[in-house]
Amino acid sequence: MAKLVLIRHGQSEWNLENKFTGWHDVDLSEEGVQEAKNAGKKLKESGILFDQAYTSVLTRAIKTLHYALEECDQLWIPEEKTWRLNERHYGALQGLNKAETAKKYGDDQVHIWRRSYDVLPPLLDPSDPESAAQDRRYADLDPRIVPGGENLKVTLERVIPFWEDEVAPKLLDGKNVIIAAHGNSLRAMTKYIENISDADIMNLEMATGEPVVYDFDDKLKVTNKEKLGK
Amino acid sequence: MAKLVLIRHGQSEWNLENKFTGWHDVDLSEEGVQEAKNAGKKLKESGILFDQAYTSVLTRAIKTLHYALEECDQLWIPEEKTWRLNERHYGALQGLNKAETAKKYGDDQVHIWRRSYDVLPPLLDPSDPESAAQDRRYADLDPRIVPGGENLKVTLERVIPFWEDEVAPKLLDGKNVIIAAHGNSLRAMTKYIENISDADIMNLEMATGEPVVYDFDDKLKVTNKEKLGK
Repeated sequence: MAKLVLIRHGQSEWNLENKFTGWHDVDLSEEGVQEAKNAGKKLKESGILFDQAYTSVLTRAIKTLHYALEECDQLWIPEEKTWRLNERHYGALQGLNKAETAKKYGDDQVHIWRRSYDVLPPLLDPSDPESAAQDRRYADLDPRIVPGGENLKVTLERVIPFWEDEVAPKLLDGKNVIIAAHGNSLRAMTKYIENISDADIMNLEMATGEPVVYDFDDKLKVTNKEKLGK
Repeated sequence: MAKLVLIRHGQSEWNLENKFTGWHDVDLSEEGVQEAKNAGKKLKESGILFDQAYTSVLTRAIKTLHYALEECDQLWIPEEKTWRLNERHYGALQGLNKAETAKKYGDDQVHIWRRSYDVLPPLLDPSDPESAAQDRRYADLDPRIVPGGENLKVTLERVIPFWEDEVAPKLLDGKNVIIAAHGNSLRAMTKYIENISDADIMNLEMATGEPVVYDFDDKLKVTNKEKLGK
């Protein structure tokens, strides 16, 4: 049966500045580039040969994928990018410093925004220059599905159609798949793959740049999960 | 109407070593990386917004595309890789030094292999480790179409179906397309686009890393061709 590898992108410039990032398109930091290359070395050691790569439409995930694939000599495999793998949209919090936001709204409120499964952040107005509605990469989407802010529940609801329509059929067809994406889109996918409860999922942390390898049976039930280390 | 941009990949490590490369998968040299980034800067200045990217399954073209797209903030656009955009396959000459080959076979013979439209190079046997038949990236192709060596005529015959089925419909649909590929696959495409004769096409040289921009009318007749400089 096929293997699935998930990689959370390496450190970004805004991780470094402790800002809420979401759909804002920031670059990897130097450390993030190294994390991605190290992930590629681990994949090379693992000997996994991929048939298909997926990533988001955000630069930090795309570059993580490219660095990792180049390092394991598989930059040539087919790649598809989709907004459905984007990070959770952080609404009007995007671009704000996390510590300053905690000072302004209180630690409890920020904790709720960050860690509750179904509480939305303050929404971004579609007319805001930071809004995804102003970004050419989402121009083909129906305005009703361009988010102004998401919680993990909403993120999961747009990740799972992609899993069902694209990833699951590939795995069932015996294809090895690699997905480079973000903390929360991968958390949503992991919740679905491992059937984790709403209450437990927010405690799941994926390390940046650490490939997670799944094996499945022919019903896509997980038979093995292995972290390749950093 | 839509725009088409062609970019020949920047200098590779084997260009630097004066070797026949063909389908052998070598990396860009440092200068090649710079050429690709400069191409991206020219594209950014041009203001062209792309809808679709195409490249070959060879690392030097893929990386040229990625560096150029990143430089003009469009790494997120859809990308498709295809063997049909690969460099001309140089058969048993792949890996040989051009000067040494000229000493062994004579300048005239090497000139014929390099510059004739329809003379094939010495073919590579499918059992040769260097053969594309041994390479996983061509495993899904019918063995009858995996080349052991190509001239420009054969290269053109496998490039044009891709032009007709993928590129032309996108352009007719008003989509801006960027293609990062190789000296001879782009020469073949240029021959077809500009309707250049068999005799004249071998004199066409495309500079590495220099974006060539085409505008078309609604029959895909060229209305403007502009080189963006290096």
